[in-house]
Amino acid sequence: MPVATQSLEELCINSIRFLAIDAVQKANSGHPGLPMGAAPMSYVLWNQFMRFNPKNPQWFNRDRFVLSAGHGCMLQYAMLYLTGYDSVTIEDIKQFRQWGSHTPGHPENFETAGIEVTTGPLGQGICNGVGLAVAEAHLAAKFNKPDATLVDHYTYVILGDGCNMEGISGEACSLAGHWGLGKLIALYDDNHISIDGSTDIAFTEDVGKRFEAYGWHVQHVPDGNTNLEAIAAAIEAAKAVTDKPSLIKVTTTIGYGSPKKAGTAGVHGAALGPDEVTATRENLGWEYEPFDIPGDALAHFRKAVERGASYEAEWNSALAQYKTKYPAEAAEFERLLKGDLPANWDAQLPSYTPEDKALATRKHSENCLNAIAPNLPELIGGSADLTHSNLTELKCSGDFQKGAYENRNLRFGVREHGMAAICNGIVLHNSGLIPYCATFLVFADYLRGALRLSALSQAGVIYVMTHDSIALGEDGPTHQPVETLASLRVIPNLLVIRPADGNETSGAYQVAITRRKQPTLLALTRQGLPNLAGSSAANVAKGAYTVVDCDGTPDLILIGTGSEVSLCVTAAEELAASGTKVRVVSMPCWELFAEQSSEYQESVLPSAVTRRLAVEAGSSFGWCRYASASISIDHFGASAPGGTVMTKFGFTVENVVAKAKAILA
Amino acid sequence: MPVATQSLEELCINSIRFLAIDAVQKANSGHPGLPMGAAPMSYVLWNQFMRFNPKNPQWFNRDRFVLSAGHGCMLQYAMLYLTGYDSVTIEDIKQFRQWGSHTPGHPENFETAGIEVTTGPLGQGICNGVGLAVAEAHLAAKFNKPDATLVDHYTYVILGDGCNMEGISGEACSLAGHWGLGKLIALYDDNHISIDGSTDIAFTEDVGKRFEAYGWHVQHVPDGNTNLEAIAAAIEAAKAVTDKPSLIKVTTTIGYGSPKKAGTAGVHGAALGPDEVTATRENLGWEYEPFDIPGDALAHFRKAVERGASYEAEWNSALAQYKTKYPAEAAEFERLLKGDLPANWDAQLPSYTPEDKALATRKHSENCLNAIAPNLPELIGGSADLTHSNLTELKCSGDFQKGAYENRNLRFGVREHGMAAICNGIVLHNSGLIPYCATFLVFADYLRGALRLSALSQAGVIYVMTHDSIALGEDGPTHQPVETLASLRVIPNLLVIRPADGNETSGAYQVAITRRKQPTLLALTRQGLPNLAGSSAANVAKGAYTVVDCDGTPDLILIGTGSEVSLCVTAAEELAASGTKVRVVSMPCWELFAEQSSEYQESVLPSAVTRRLAVEAGSSFGWCRYASASISIDHFGASAPGGTVMTKFGFTVENVVAKAKAILA
Repeated sequence: MPVATQSLEELCINSIRFLAIDAVQKANSGHPGLPMGAAPMSYVLWNQFMRFNPKNPQWFNRDRFVLSAGHGCMLQYAMLYLTGYDSVTIEDIKQFRQWGSHTPGHPENFETAGIEVTTGPLGQGICNGVGLAVAEAHLAAKFNKPDATLVDHYTYVILGDGCNMEGISGEACSLAGHWGLGKLIALYDDNHISIDGSTDIAFTEDVGKRFEAYGWHVQHVPDGNTNLEAIAAAIEAAKAVTDKPSLIKVTTTIGYGSPKKAGTAGVHGAALGPDEVTATRENLGWEYEPFDIPGDALAHFRKAVERGASYEAEWNSALAQYKTKYPAEAAEFERLLKGDLPANWDAQLPSYTPEDKALATRKHSENCLNAIAPNLPELIGGSADLTHSNLTELKCSGDFQKGAYENRNLRFGVREHGMAAICNGIVLHNSGLIPYCATFLVFADYLRGALRLSALSQAGVIYVMTHDSIALGEDGPTHQPVETLASLRVIPNLLVIRPADGNETSGAYQVAITRRKQPTLLALTRQGLPNLAGSSAANVAKGAYTVVDCDGTPDLILIGTGSEVSLCVTAAEELAASGTKVRVVSMPCWELFAEQSSEYQESVLPSAVTRRLAVEAGSSFGWCRYASASISIDHFGASAPGGTVMTKFGFTVENVVAKAKAILA
Repeated sequence: MPVATQSLEELCINSIRFLAIDAVQKANSGHPGLPMGAAPMSYVLWNQFMRFNPKNPQWFNRDRFVLSAGHGCMLQYAMLYLTGYDSVTIEDIKQFRQWGSHTPGHPENFETAGIEVTTGPLGQGICNGVGLAVAEAHLAAKFNKPDATLVDHYTYVILGDGCNMEGISGEACSLAGHWGLGKLIALYDDNHISIDGSTDIAFTEDVGKRFEAYGWHVQHVPDGNTNLEAIAAAIEAAKAVTDKPSLIKVTTTIGYGSPKKAGTAGVHGAALGPDEVTATRENLGWEYEPFDIPGDALAHFRKAVERGASYEAEWNSALAQYKTKYPAEAAEFERLLKGDLPANWDAQLPSYTPEDKALATRKHSENCLNAIAPNLPELIGGSADLTHSNLTELKCSGDFQKGAYENRNLRFGVREHGMAAICNGIVLHNSGLIPYCATFLVFADYLRGALRLSALSQAGVIYVMTHDSIALGEDGPTHQPVETLASLRVIPNLLVIRPADGNETSGAYQVAITRRKQPTLLALTRQGLPNLAGSSAANVAKGAYTVVDCDGTPDLILIGTGSEVSLCVTAAEELAASGTKVRVVSMPCWELFAEQSSEYQESVLPSAVTRRLAVEAGSSFGWCRYASASISIDHFGASAPGGTVMTKFGFTVENVVAKAKAILA
């Protein structure tokens, strides 16, 4: 169709398409198909419905947008550019997928303002969307008054077949239906194609029916390529349903506009190629050069700037009125947005002496959570159906449920991976909420995809992981972590803290709560542990420290973590009694220790003292960094009472003493 | 109800219940609730429908049974004992959850004959069940003739709310519906309780509707506590539906029979306590001592022995006739069952010289798969929607689909975790099938729960994982593994092989195919790699070997894996030119190297040579075991062309030479 007869809408939609086509072509890398097919729905959504301020990507009351099909990110970069975000210029578009660009190959929240969450791994984004909607619902319930609305925005997600095949998405969508999150609206780009080809090959379920089974409101737009009114009507209808999340299945053609490649798997993840780019231009009547956007279209998109400024101004004046009527709540609201923790938030964190009762660190964790929760209203979280094993219930609050969104206990059900991704969304709502999630440490394996994204996207989720070793006993090898700690320590930007007693658990929470750009994982025991003389909450922040020292240079250093520190302490007493100079170091967190100055590290683990024995009821993998020998377990565990298992596998004072003597011999 | 008036059925069902109640009580640990509630359906299933031979747990044509709700394993141990398996005696029942017992806390296939798969982590078992059903369908299509049926058995699974909440189960059940696996029958123990309490708290979806959406046949038995006829009728009806898997939602009361605890979360995972044990005995009219089973009930259960013997005898004579009519097929069938690989199965594995074209190891992998597939009919597998990226299509076969189960390409869709668990089921069908599954290496995170079970349950699944480093380029940090290799090396009983070129890829397959009790994970490149002089397929089995040597004792050893070996080789040439004596070691597999004699290990990495530099485009974590320094990447990657990323992060010959010189200085 010649340019002259293209409507303004067509100009706008094709602008989106060709930015994607040309950026991918220039990079010779990327995914043009989804942007080409989903351009119409994106245009309708961003132009007609979404409330945002391109000049203030952090405006609190903006609608949130998530591209769960993150490979289609040129779609999102195009929208950010066209609507006037400063974070994506036309130069950035041209640098798509190049070193140092602001337009990386999958959307990164830490790289590009306007990107809410990092997606790419399928299924994650829709779950983040559930988390963003949880945050909105919670804050709305907390702050809105009958005569003053402060919190009122939607969460829109575009997801595709891939996300719908991933099990994680079913977990979060089942929860979203249970929770009745009425301001979550997902547009399902139903293009019947995945990488391997037609969805007939492997994905023939009735997605709409499944979402109805979850309690969602479901609609179908059969022509998502050209029927913009139908898309708009569906979004209106979705907004009108306030007690259920909404799925709008929008049937589209992947790679719409490409004569040879439209509707094929080939257009999913590769540049069209110069010939097909030309053919697509001809087919869609697009006479503009790459990266050249018709003035009319750009001007139309850029009205978002003025609209956005006025939405924000409106909201600012609502906030001002709210401040007058509800000064205390307003102050609290602003504190949250700033991310300032309340003064003395940690004042109630308990401290212990050896006379205090021996408790499991999961129990200390429960005490910590409940000590801080009343003074830290932003703390919100829960367990994947192990509340009374993980000990993660906040007693000062009820359950977050339909009609009770102000509550803070999130009952995730047996959905570890969805739980973690939801928590990523809650943090990345960027309103000061501090989410924690919990399960057994061994099931870190189930949530690792989302945990990695917590680390990558700098989301300070707190992972409360109990039953942290073979000492858990009878549940046996399927439940006993052996390699889990090591497998977590390798993840960049993740703090893994394994506290030895009550003081160290308090210290772990001091770190976890204050580290907002880094997830923290706490590995906690099922079994009771003595409170150690010399243990210290403050020293947890240093990662490792001396709990028991000797006079002068040690002959040997015992390095323990968690439940094994007390073994080391007792073994050290025996060795000291026979004249050996032993230092005991507690090492609750490798990553924090590595952050310390070399002087500090040297003071704890002097390089001259090469005789070191690490003791941890877990894998030896990696301990060579700090110790010349270790008492470890490098095979799967066994089902028996915990004390028996620990003894049989060598975690006894006797064995520590014996191994120490062997080293000294 | 007094004993005298209990029907035989009630006696039998209560026998199951009380074995569980008493074993858990004696251990003071375990999960009595599910066994008490699911005893009726188990009784009906095992007594009336399941075909198995208690005296031959390995009889090929047995029906398979999986307790996906693995915590309820006392149910399964009770059935094994009562029906006469030698693997579970009454002594074993008494030793439930004790050191060295055959009745560990969750069912372990490697410990107790009659247990098909290891469960415990929720959601896994039902997916294993899908795999078992895939194996049956495939073998039936391969071997059955119009006039001779050799393969004909059902796969029965009991699963609960927990399994149904887990995303992994949705993945495999969606596939089972797509594949129309009509001989898979799942009984859903619908007791409305999970650990946290009522399912009203977090799980209110319409499960039956969801399964209908997947294409399953769905029934509901409203009274699964007492209406045995209804349970039986539902199983009959399920068997009659031959083109869809069947879900029977059986509504039960968890902890049925316990006056105070029935229907509560408390009875899920803790012993009843002596008082409630007594009260339950009274309530159900059970006058027998713990572990004492009424003679009538035992005799009734033990009829399974005679039935089983006759089922097996019947089948043996069917096999004998089959042998006469179809000797070639029969020989092949028997070969598979024995687990003997065909003679010279690996004869076609390619070998290379440096003159051969540089190819990515994922491409070499494709060539290996297709070289061996025609002569190794047991090889069956596929990718999680990345077939043409992972390069895992077997060209000698078509897609496994409804009506075409004889085919060998499994199109899993974007369902990594379900895929791996299905493969566990295929291996543990124990009929010689060798499954492989594939995705991007970074998405090992998504399937780790099932991968761990591959290792624990000694299931020789082959994981083909491509795009193994930052060298994959533009897809960026969400897709670039950095810590993944290290996180996999820590898993016990898993071989992680990262081949350097074509020869090593062939060697990797030689290992992976022959190691049937151990999963193997191959980490393969996206980018092309030169074929190295000195590389060797045979040496992969040794885990590490010298590719380039020097005269006499090396000044320095460069240790490389995969794509970095050629960097090391080139760097060594430069260093040698300036007079340094450098040895280059390729270390494709840590675990295999650790299996070698100390003499061999010493010969490759002499302890006297302490100057060693490891080079791997991945985390440094753990390399201290083999090298004093490494060129690694300990942070997330970046989106840019692969060559740029590798250069920017130091994976260049120049950098290797510079670091080597620094070590030698």
